[in-house]
Amino acid sequence: MAFRLPSHMPRRICAGKSSSFGLSQLNSRARGLATVVPPVTQDATGSKGPTAMVFMNMGGPQTTDQVGDFLSRLFSDGDLIPLGRLQSYIGPLLSKRRTPKIQKQYSDIGGGSPIRKWSEYQNEEMCKILDKISPETAPHKPYVAFRYANPLTEHMYQQLLDDGFGKGRGGRAVAFTQYPQYSCSTTGSSLNELWKWRHRLESKHSGGEGAINWSVIDRWPVHHGLVEAFAQHIEAKLAEYPEERRKDVVLLFSAHSLPMSVVNRGDPYPAEVAATVYAVMQRLRFSNPYRLCWQSQVGPSAWLGPQTSDTVENFIKKGQKDLVLIPIAFTSDHIETLYELDLEVIGESGHSDTVKRAESLNGSPVFIEALADIAKNHLASGESCSPQMGLRCPACTSERCAVTKEFFSGKKAQSYPGDKVLAQ
Amino acid sequence: MAFRLPSHMPRRICAGKSSSFGLSQLNSRARGLATVVPPVTQDATGSKGPTAMVFMNMGGPQTTDQVGDFLSRLFSDGDLIPLGRLQSYIGPLLSKRRTPKIQKQYSDIGGGSPIRKWSEYQNEEMCKILDKISPETAPHKPYVAFRYANPLTEHMYQQLLDDGFGKGRGGRAVAFTQYPQYSCSTTGSSLNELWKWRHRLESKHSGGEGAINWSVIDRWPVHHGLVEAFAQHIEAKLAEYPEERRKDVVLLFSAHSLPMSVVNRGDPYPAEVAATVYAVMQRLRFSNPYRLCWQSQVGPSAWLGPQTSDTVENFIKKGQKDLVLIPIAFTSDHIETLYELDLEVIGESGHSDTVKRAESLNGSPVFIEALADIAKNHLASGESCSPQMGLRCPACTSERCAVTKEFFSGKKAQSYPGDKVLAQ
Repeated sequence: MAFRLPSHMPRRICAGKSSSFGLSQLNSRARGLATVVPPVTQDATGSKGPTAMVFMNMGGPQTTDQVGDFLSRLFSDGDLIPLGRLQSYIGPLLSKRRTPKIQKQYSDIGGGSPIRKWSEYQNEEMCKILDKISPETAPHKPYVAFRYANPLTEHMYQQLLDDGFGKGRGGRAVAFTQYPQYSCSTTGSSLNELWKWRHRLESKHSGGEGAINWSVIDRWPVHHGLVEAFAQHIEAKLAEYPEERRKDVVLLFSAHSLPMSVVNRGDPYPAEVAATVYAVMQRLRFSNPYRLCWQSQVGPSAWLGPQTSDTVENFIKKGQKDLVLIPIAFTSDHIETLYELDLEVIGESGHSDTVKRAESLNGSPVFIEALADIAKNHLASGESCSPQMGLRCPACTSERCAVTKEFFSGKKAQSYPGDKVLAQ
Repeated sequence: MAFRLPSHMPRRICAGKSSSFGLSQLNSRARGLATVVPPVTQDATGSKGPTAMVFMNMGGPQTTDQVGDFLSRLFSDGDLIPLGRLQSYIGPLLSKRRTPKIQKQYSDIGGGSPIRKWSEYQNEEMCKILDKISPETAPHKPYVAFRYANPLTEHMYQQLLDDGFGKGRGGRAVAFTQYPQYSCSTTGSSLNELWKWRHRLESKHSGGEGAINWSVIDRWPVHHGLVEAFAQHIEAKLAEYPEERRKDVVLLFSAHSLPMSVVNRGDPYPAEVAATVYAVMQRLRFSNPYRLCWQSQVGPSAWLGPQTSDTVENFIKKGQKDLVLIPIAFTSDHIETLYELDLEVIGESGHSDTVKRAESLNGSPVFIEALADIAKNHLASGESCSPQMGLRCPACTSERCAVTKEFFSGKKAQSYPGDKVLAQ
């Protein structure tokens, strides 16, 4: 499957390019990466434009040469893959071992991930809409911060500073997660990283005065525009089946799975993914039978199921060969759709004529309008984040999560293990 | 906690009492319990009143003397507790061993389960409303069919026949699950039992002519009235906290857990429970942080978490002592609320002044109006069940589920293992 760019999409979009709204440029680089950071809080109320809109996502290698670095960062992330004290030893070993296999997969889907292209396109288009529907916070400037690939969080943050935000000059930035449903492994990890660089790069202004004023859009699992975009892509795919078979096609919503250790810690993701699925089915008026399944399990530990690949196999065994797979927890194509679903699950099903996949949201104008609506409502709300964001998982023991949540939700830290946390 | 009956509730309600709408009485008892049953289908379209409204639920012992029989039936149910070929040997052993402990629990909550009282009350009140808002299907007659306690499914079915339904005379009955979210362990088990007795007691009319015409209300996880009833009970409980602490109270939605083997088979329950939770939070405008947790795990195998008891303990350890527990997957009080949540989780938390429980739906007029609305819409729809009901779980291997789903969803059985399935 090729990467599909709509014809009206600009060929080259650079997230975080130099500002054009007249704030002075800064070239100073960060110092003092492990300074002690006193308790600070955020208050987004009342800030006005210009506004930096920062899309957070996991990212992906753009070329097969970048796969090694990508996996190395991914396996070093204790929020995503908790390996304990041996993280810095085991992580590189695992990533090195997996690199050739994953390089082959990226090679099979055209040589790299389209996530950067889509993220930059979606954000740029969203900002154009926002400039019209939220003039009081305009101009809106698009930035992308990936967790494991360029542009990394630290690059995005430095660009913000170079563009005139923060460092005594204030300015407002919105961390807009591109994971519709919140998990500590995804949005949580990105926010921990953002918090880390906020304190490393703006430590002198950590009392709050003149530092960048951050607020967070931390989840949006049932936004009507998101639901509409999913529903339209499902309807388009269902229309490919003969009318007499259409209503019996089984819809298989597929989301990235989580280890049961994370589920049992109280991660909110499985419930929020289920909420998206139910909202989409309501919009479709429950026209078809459906199931939610979970993909991309790795390693020997227990993960949340049923597994997507097993589910497809089992339904085919039962004689149910008309199946539409719907990637429900990611907003653009990536290795899990282009390789795992298209080439592995569908390609190896023996029924690639009747097992299909709904197109990812990618350049959907309905989806981009939804992003703008979510952002506009957030900007107008004066909220620093959702009430839900401030609540740690019941069995969470991560100090990183504790301080990040206290910071972004505007609650005062009771104790503040700055050095210790920054060193993690 | 005492059983709370509203003052307007009749003191004695007998579900399935003799019909008063003039159909002849039948005294014949069922014969031929293992007859071969040919393929038949259901078509609820176009049938009119009188209408039997059958509430299906698990039931509970009304006195401590009934605990042994209750547990014996429960541990014999392979849909709920799959013990394989040894079910009939291990089941009684397990139930016998657990009887004294469970008797003590029922003794501690007042001597028995209030589920029959509430089920009969809710159904009778619903039927009164239905007679007004759905006159074309009136009169509506309330019946209760419990899976493990009286009135059992076979007693309900015999009462239907005695009251003039079926056996050549036709008539319409609606199997209305009282589990808002569908699980194969709960609603699925009740439907398998209903199918079994349908074929045992109406085998002569199994071609469809003159047999009872069944349709199924198989799930209703986000009905607006259900959501409203939950939300009102939460708001009432939140109002008990001082205003300055109210918005930081954590809402803990608690549902009965499932073994991971059932989750990984593709049981739709976890996703539907999550949909209810999200809908309630939407109604509350996300006023408070919240989590979904799972209770009542037994035995050594892996169950879906996080566990409710651990969750409460962990939040208290983190300093979060204002907690409201909300039983979100059951519609009246039962041992899991009155004993497990009230006496164990809250009673032993050391903070029974700040850890509270939202009242169960029980006699809530908003809830009973919701039941009537759900029933009215179903009766008017002409549907035999939801499109979702016909879809087996991807990894299901149960022949019982296969024939039950084919029967109630109106699909023809391809092969029909009547004797074999009835003998299970």
